[in-house]
Amino acid sequence: MSGPRAEVLAIGDELVHGSAVDTNSAWLARQLEDLGIAVVRFTVVSDTPAELDRALGQACARADLVVATGGLGPTEDDRTRHAAAAAAGVGLAFDPASWATIEAWFAARGRAAGEDNRRQALVPAGGVALPNRWGTAPGLRLGIGRCTLFALPGVPAEMRAMFEHCVVPGLRELFAARLNPVVHRTLNVLGPTEAALGARLEDVMAAVEGPVRVGITAHFGLLRVRIAATAADRESAAAAADAMADRLRPRLGEELVYEGDQSLAERVLAELREQGATVATAESCTGGLCAKVLTDLPGASEVFVGGIVCYANRSKVRDLGVPADLIEAQGAVSEPVAAALARGAAERFGAGFGLGITGIAGPDGGTADKPVGTVCFGLHARGSTRSWRRRIAPVSREFVRERSVFEALAALLRALREDPVPGEPGPPSPAR
Amino acid sequence: MSGPRAEVLAIGDELVHGSAVDTNSAWLARQLEDLGIAVVRFTVVSDTPAELDRALGQACARADLVVATGGLGPTEDDRTRHAAAAAAGVGLAFDPASWATIEAWFAARGRAAGEDNRRQALVPAGGVALPNRWGTAPGLRLGIGRCTLFALPGVPAEMRAMFEHCVVPGLRELFAARLNPVVHRTLNVLGPTEAALGARLEDVMAAVEGPVRVGITAHFGLLRVRIAATAADRESAAAAADAMADRLRPRLGEELVYEGDQSLAERVLAELREQGATVATAESCTGGLCAKVLTDLPGASEVFVGGIVCYANRSKVRDLGVPADLIEAQGAVSEPVAAALARGAAERFGAGFGLGITGIAGPDGGTADKPVGTVCFGLHARGSTRSWRRRIAPVSREFVRERSVFEALAALLRALREDPVPGEPGPPSPAR
Repeated sequence: MSGPRAEVLAIGDELVHGSAVDTNSAWLARQLEDLGIAVVRFTVVSDTPAELDRALGQACARADLVVATGGLGPTEDDRTRHAAAAAAGVGLAFDPASWATIEAWFAARGRAAGEDNRRQALVPAGGVALPNRWGTAPGLRLGIGRCTLFALPGVPAEMRAMFEHCVVPGLRELFAARLNPVVHRTLNVLGPTEAALGARLEDVMAAVEGPVRVGITAHFGLLRVRIAATAADRESAAAAADAMADRLRPRLGEELVYEGDQSLAERVLAELREQGATVATAESCTGGLCAKVLTDLPGASEVFVGGIVCYANRSKVRDLGVPADLIEAQGAVSEPVAAALARGAAERFGAGFGLGITGIAGPDGGTADKPVGTVCFGLHARGSTRSWRRRIAPVSREFVRERSVFEALAALLRALREDPVPGEPGPPSPAR
Repeated sequence: MSGPRAEVLAIGDELVHGSAVDTNSAWLARQLEDLGIAVVRFTVVSDTPAELDRALGQACARADLVVATGGLGPTEDDRTRHAAAAAAGVGLAFDPASWATIEAWFAARGRAAGEDNRRQALVPAGGVALPNRWGTAPGLRLGIGRCTLFALPGVPAEMRAMFEHCVVPGLRELFAARLNPVVHRTLNVLGPTEAALGARLEDVMAAVEGPVRVGITAHFGLLRVRIAATAADRESAAAAADAMADRLRPRLGEELVYEGDQSLAERVLAELREQGATVATAESCTGGLCAKVLTDLPGASEVFVGGIVCYANRSKVRDLGVPADLIEAQGAVSEPVAAALARGAAERFGAGFGLGITGIAGPDGGTADKPVGTVCFGLHARGSTRSWRRRIAPVSREFVRERSVFEALAALLRALREDPVPGEPGPPSPAR
């Protein structure tokens, strides 16, 4: 690859102590990859001067580009500016323009900048302060040998905003001639295990020539097949990505739930909104997770009418109209009860669609007949109800619950697609 | 510190591409710290031979101990064994004992090991294969100069089990003389911002001598003040940790919600269980998150009776008995409505305690009077109801929702403590 050699550096004692997980580096790697810059190494290092100076110096010696996060705050142990100056072999000077920006930030909030904050206005000789409109810590751009260092605050929201506003333009200017556009396609699959899907796609992936990469990532059983294609121009890259998607689709069959970078919940909400449809939930083993996932997104209130967490059987009977003798005869974890939950939710909340989920999330409560991971689903779609059962791998309670919500939302998405005319009752998709 | 210098290395293209976040390193750092070993650097590196060989060699040259994860699988790009052999300057040999274990693992699952898996039986000269009872990939222990390398699989469950069974005994044997016991205490605080709490504790933290560290970590507004004390023996370390906790407690006042490593939800469920009490929820802006958090834990069904996600106002009226004219007069986001939700949930589900949450999670929907982040809470505790309002920093929709659930659960925990005799009605705690 002809692109620049890039590394990412995350700075903070809390990270190497394991009290916080560094998610900034993965986010930066994705952004850089979208610009055509491959990251080959992350380093996470403590604030200790000797450790930080060494790690920052080494990264800059190896790479054309280093993006660092953290260590720009006002306290004694915020030493990223000092480490950068040391690596470049230059001094630090107080920058009145940065100080004015910091003072203005505080003034706008009716407060005064502290003496401590003066530390944040230090800039290594030859470096440029990057204004931070989202917090107090200015960033930094500094050439260190053949490497360019961008230092950003560690607070994710500030870091992301500054990356987009201050770093991306700098990267285009620095590396424009060396960057090839990258085009992504994402196919989202529910059903097979990651290993099984990998085996199924292996020969197609091996047969393709040129700079097209295919990766599979798994999130509680929802598999994202991500295609990344590079070429000299965006059109050729898009064509290569599309060609790969065309070759993979037949291998995915009905297990391909949807395409694109949206989350499954985003996709479902968008489809509901487009059709002017509404949904309600009745959850037993997922205990509110399905409602939570649907309401994670702003504007959910237009399409998500409400939900009931019917953890106790008496709530299934009283709140959702599940016949008590049905639970008695079939058990709470059964297809007929799941169907009754789905119908009950739709009717109680007056929604076009209802989802019912009842199962054994574990780690206890399984039987020979219904082991941990047995989950029954009900989908009430515009007047008719179907139900089905899955044996979810009992990896953990969390896995069973998250995977169950994906199953329910995928079924809802399929039902929405098969009957796209709002208000016109039609058959829900058959169980698979 | 006299302990060994430790680094952690995570290996995998998916990590440096940002498609997966490395959580293994933070977990390992916490485990090592509990053994008295401080980790000073993590490295995350791609599978590319040149990059991996260099990163692994450099880490082993700097450290007394390197724990690596990933790159032990059966495919071509699993190259951790090769990189370790290269760093040590030795060759790789096929280990019949490892191969027998791998074959047995497959046989026990009615399958045959593939030709690919033979790669997993390679061991660098002078190294020891670490048996993996939880998967196919054996681990590796190898001396590289003055450094000891432990290589573990990247799958978190396998990695964790192997760390406990194979690495911990090795560390005790290698570093026993250099390890001091570490004792932790955790104080969990809800109310102040992280910066404000840091300022409040600063002088106490600065005044303490000896190897006692105090760190603050924040998770959606719930602050954990974590004390770590080291000493030559466990009793002295515990005494030092307790002395620090005694000094910090008066500074925390009523904002100290509970002590210990449990999550707030775990603490609440344990207290409910101990008292034989039950809870039900009525959630508007948190949309099921409170129920979800309570049911994340196994055995929740004994104490969590059920919940309603009343996203729409008509559901508040119909399902929870909130008077329609109350919503009309006060607005859905108001203390009286929150109180009615809490009482309605407790009554509808027949629970001793009821929680009601209604607010504006954002990013839209705020007004001058009730900006984004305004959340009203109701707590119905054994017959009497109180309600209060909070202005939560509108950091993000997710933050407002998570912080709201902490607020509700903290209030429930306080109410449980103030009236610990089950069934005996008593006044809920006053609003603060």
